[in-house]
Amino acid sequence: MGRAFFRSSHNMADLLPLIIKKRDQIKLSEIEIELFIESITSKNPPPDYQIASLLAFIVARGMDSEENFWLTNAMLKSGDAFEYKGFSPEALFVDKHSTGGIGDKITLPLAPLVVAAAENLHIPTIAGRALGHTGGTVDKLESIPGFQTGLTMDRFYKILKKHRLAFLSQTPQIAPADRILYALRDVTGTVSSIPLITASILSKKLSESLDFLLIDLKCGSGAFLPDREQTEALGQRMLKVLNQFQKRAKICMTNMDTPLGHYSGNLWEVHESLEILKGQGPSSSTRLTLEFAKRILESSGVESSRATQSLENALHSGAALKKFEDSVEAQGGEISKMEKAIADLQKLKSFSVKAECEGFLKWNVTELGFALVELGAGRKTKTDKVDNEVGAYHPVDTGDRVLKNQEILRLYYRDKGRLNVCLERLKSAIQIKEQAVTKTPLIIKEWATTL
Amino acid sequence: MGRAFFRSSHNMADLLPLIIKKRDQIKLSEIEIELFIESITSKNPPPDYQIASLLAFIVARGMDSEENFWLTNAMLKSGDAFEYKGFSPEALFVDKHSTGGIGDKITLPLAPLVVAAAENLHIPTIAGRALGHTGGTVDKLESIPGFQTGLTMDRFYKILKKHRLAFLSQTPQIAPADRILYALRDVTGTVSSIPLITASILSKKLSESLDFLLIDLKCGSGAFLPDREQTEALGQRMLKVLNQFQKRAKICMTNMDTPLGHYSGNLWEVHESLEILKGQGPSSSTRLTLEFAKRILESSGVESSRATQSLENALHSGAALKKFEDSVEAQGGEISKMEKAIADLQKLKSFSVKAECEGFLKWNVTELGFALVELGAGRKTKTDKVDNEVGAYHPVDTGDRVLKNQEILRLYYRDKGRLNVCLERLKSAIQIKEQAVTKTPLIIKEWATTL
Repeated sequence: MGRAFFRSSHNMADLLPLIIKKRDQIKLSEIEIELFIESITSKNPPPDYQIASLLAFIVARGMDSEENFWLTNAMLKSGDAFEYKGFSPEALFVDKHSTGGIGDKITLPLAPLVVAAAENLHIPTIAGRALGHTGGTVDKLESIPGFQTGLTMDRFYKILKKHRLAFLSQTPQIAPADRILYALRDVTGTVSSIPLITASILSKKLSESLDFLLIDLKCGSGAFLPDREQTEALGQRMLKVLNQFQKRAKICMTNMDTPLGHYSGNLWEVHESLEILKGQGPSSSTRLTLEFAKRILESSGVESSRATQSLENALHSGAALKKFEDSVEAQGGEISKMEKAIADLQKLKSFSVKAECEGFLKWNVTELGFALVELGAGRKTKTDKVDNEVGAYHPVDTGDRVLKNQEILRLYYRDKGRLNVCLERLKSAIQIKEQAVTKTPLIIKEWATTL
Repeated sequence: MGRAFFRSSHNMADLLPLIIKKRDQIKLSEIEIELFIESITSKNPPPDYQIASLLAFIVARGMDSEENFWLTNAMLKSGDAFEYKGFSPEALFVDKHSTGGIGDKITLPLAPLVVAAAENLHIPTIAGRALGHTGGTVDKLESIPGFQTGLTMDRFYKILKKHRLAFLSQTPQIAPADRILYALRDVTGTVSSIPLITASILSKKLSESLDFLLIDLKCGSGAFLPDREQTEALGQRMLKVLNQFQKRAKICMTNMDTPLGHYSGNLWEVHESLEILKGQGPSSSTRLTLEFAKRILESSGVESSRATQSLENALHSGAALKKFEDSVEAQGGEISKMEKAIADLQKLKSFSVKAECEGFLKWNVTELGFALVELGAGRKTKTDKVDNEVGAYHPVDTGDRVLKNQEILRLYYRDKGRLNVCLERLKSAIQIKEQAVTKTPLIIKEWATTL
């Protein structure tokens, strides 16, 4: 019936023509995508059921990389991008984004390490909260007594200028279209979509007006997408869109077939981050921190061996740790209270999960994540409070050989009832195989944009 | 995260697990489909955006015939089915349903003809209103002064018992799940789906507790589905589901590459129906009425040549016309006012559309339908009023040879402005080809259930 895009009678945006095009596998135009994104943040947004239907058809039919670029760009333009005024002309702005996994606290040691190792680098991070089976950087930082991420932009820029790193939780001004879409995707089964994930991640990260972006694309049983093929496709798609933005970026596909490092749970991860910065962290999380830091330094023109050297110096001199502590204090955190909170973790009740037989361990990392959520370490719904102290020590990785009765996992818990629910869920998280289980390399694959 | 089907916190049904299954191409179970349909008619229905998302994934992923049977059955059970109490033991209940087209007034002459020709047959029709490019039986009947289709069930059964035919507009008690889903499908681009169309049509028609159902599946440029392949697929699917219901039925795929009969517009179609019942109707609509009537009679065990004879008698004796008039009066209509209203149609302003050149006519029937909607003959939105008097005379069919300046179409209009909009739209409805245009047979194909 040839409806107009905007239904005049109720002054409400009508997405029907776009829905029908996407349903019938016809490519959307740049203008259509722009109008869609503008409409959802306008005063007269289209009804939720139309947005839901359009999202479902986008999930089912896909988007080509051009549509995906237009969508990302429109979502980016729905909000404000960072503007760096009064910084030195040599200042470079860099960041890392992770698609999320269990034990992934890398942002915490990485950011201070990078800024300690290179004087012109700045890290302006927009960070998120935990939802689903994975944790969130904001929750980890805020487990430090006093630490605040809900900063005004003024305060954010001030901290960034002084310390060259600052952490901000997403505000209504940053990619608001993504907030609206994400809330709806979460309840309409439309999260798992390569074009929608790409647009969501990149619209937020591009708001940071970066010179270089490193994306940690998790792959394996703890990752968001179920298989390697789809994870690779997501990497390829992000690469294409980043190229269309002419953004310098690197995408590292990393192993999430096993939890990262040795600790999960907010304060436990702060603890491990401090260990990494002291040169005493577990090998996997320490190595990943250093590998990422090296790539970021190289992106700013530092030659490879000099980058390695600078990072070693920053760690061993204590400069990186000092940067972390300065950053904590700048955002309201108190070092002594943080240290006490970490020391107090040992007072928590613990429960050891032991190998029932000899063999090779295989984690289902997503199930491990959900088991820890049952303990209180994560959120089931947005309003749930996270318990910063509960968590897990997991020194054994997928592929490691275990002996009968060897401790695989130590759970730190507060409540016996929740422990039991967690243990029930853990049954589907742990397998011990007779045959050797393949170990996946820490960094599986990487891509760089053409710039 | 293993959500339960019902989210306990808000006592609101949560369709997320079903959405994700359908999205991931996993077959839904009978119980899941039942819970879905029960939930949408319950006091705590799931949010519209979840229903919309599930519908979109059903459109995109399809349903197999078993899921489709479960869906139809659940929708049927969401409401009341007709119960025939106090009818003679020989009474048989039969009906015809059309998927809709331009000029399709067949129900009006067919029903009285059938009951005039066979004494045990009863026609309890649930009829619909016009929406989109096609008309609706309820609108056509209600263009007869006084005619009412909004009957109580008591009154409906009384009329049915006395006259063996009665027309009822859909009530909230008949397949309520279909009403809810249809309203949402209309605004979320999820109308065009074989499983959803099948469930919608059959859940309503099976509510009539029929002994035999004839489905007129329109095929061609005026049909709901865009091509012959999909129309055949819809026929096959309806056949499968009807077989699973063990319902005796016939599906006739008929030509909608050209408008049916010579008149479109509510009162114009009542006029043509009377002509058919007087044996003076246009050949296509008269033939289709007789072909359908014959199949219905045969379904009740009447032998072919006797069926033809009974129908001829019913027409030529005036018995069929008398049945129509009795039915009109039984539902509150006034014959004399109807006749005057039809006579008055000639007073309307008319505009002749003439062939610009010699050649073979080809209608785009959907575009013709939308052009007539612009004239006021149909509805753009549910609250639009239909003008019963505007309409069209279309004596030339697709494939007919036309001479230059020959009248192709006569428009009966009320308002000059609307006429101009209609004429603009008509440009995409009429083509005159140099090469001969294939004529499609009136009945293209037919299928019967195995019973």
